[in-house]
Amino acid sequence: MSRHLILFAHGSRDPRWRQPFEGFHAKLLAEQGASAAQPPFSVHLAYMEMTSPTLGEVVDAIVAEGGSKLVVLPMFMAAGAHLAHDLPRLLEEVAARHPGVEIQALPPLGEHPAVVEAMLRVAQTVF
Amino acid sequence: MSRHLILFAHGSRDPRWRQPFEGFHAKLLAEQGASAAQPPFSVHLAYMEMTSPTLGEVVDAIVAEGGSKLVVLPMFMAAGAHLAHDLPRLLEEVAARHPGVEIQALPPLGEHPAVVEAMLRVAQTVF
Repeated sequence: MSRHLILFAHGSRDPRWRQPFEGFHAKLLAEQGASAAQPPFSVHLAYMEMTSPTLGEVVDAIVAEGGSKLVVLPMFMAAGAHLAHDLPRLLEEVAARHPGVEIQALPPLGEHPAVVEAMLRVAQTVF
Repeated sequence: MSRHLILFAHGSRDPRWRQPFEGFHAKLLAEQGASAAQPPFSVHLAYMEMTSPTLGEVVDAIVAEGGSKLVVLPMFMAAGAHLAHDLPRLLEEVAARHPGVEIQALPPLGEHPAVVEAMLRVAQTVF
């Protein structure tokens, strides 16, 4: 398979923190497995810091298996210093190792209009 | 008004980072203002670190104006060390200053089923 989605999360010193991200990854995998046809892309999970695997490790593994089109989807609430500086630096490092591979980073999930709308509906019903 | 929702975000050294949270806060305020009746609760925005106002500052201001029932909604993707340790410590500090005030912390927005569902739909359409 040539198309790969990489879920990109912050990482934490608390091992429990990763569970929701692993659960999200597992849900995506299950949805893809439940589709009748060949899944349109494969799904991976990588972390920025403190938790493995790192983004570099995941990209290296994907490329080693022939992947050529990669999209990084940040599971962050907002684009701050991590997405403005740390993620581009990580992407430059992997691009230097894999010059023929296309890697694109998307805006953070927390800023997607559909996610913002869902969060607004939750916030309106807390009382 | 006695009921108060406090949106609780991480904070960042990058001032652009706060814009989505301020935008979310503004959207909630606009929705409440658009309702015909008296808004059911007021909405505030506070940060854990690096960005002001802090949670303590916001709680102090709410209590000074007579607020007595406060709900903290973490705008985090997942419950890690910050929500397991840092937020409870902050809540203990404000509870000690305001013993008669009810303060409840909710699970993070990123783990709410409706938000997870919205994020799954976004992730399925990246290609």
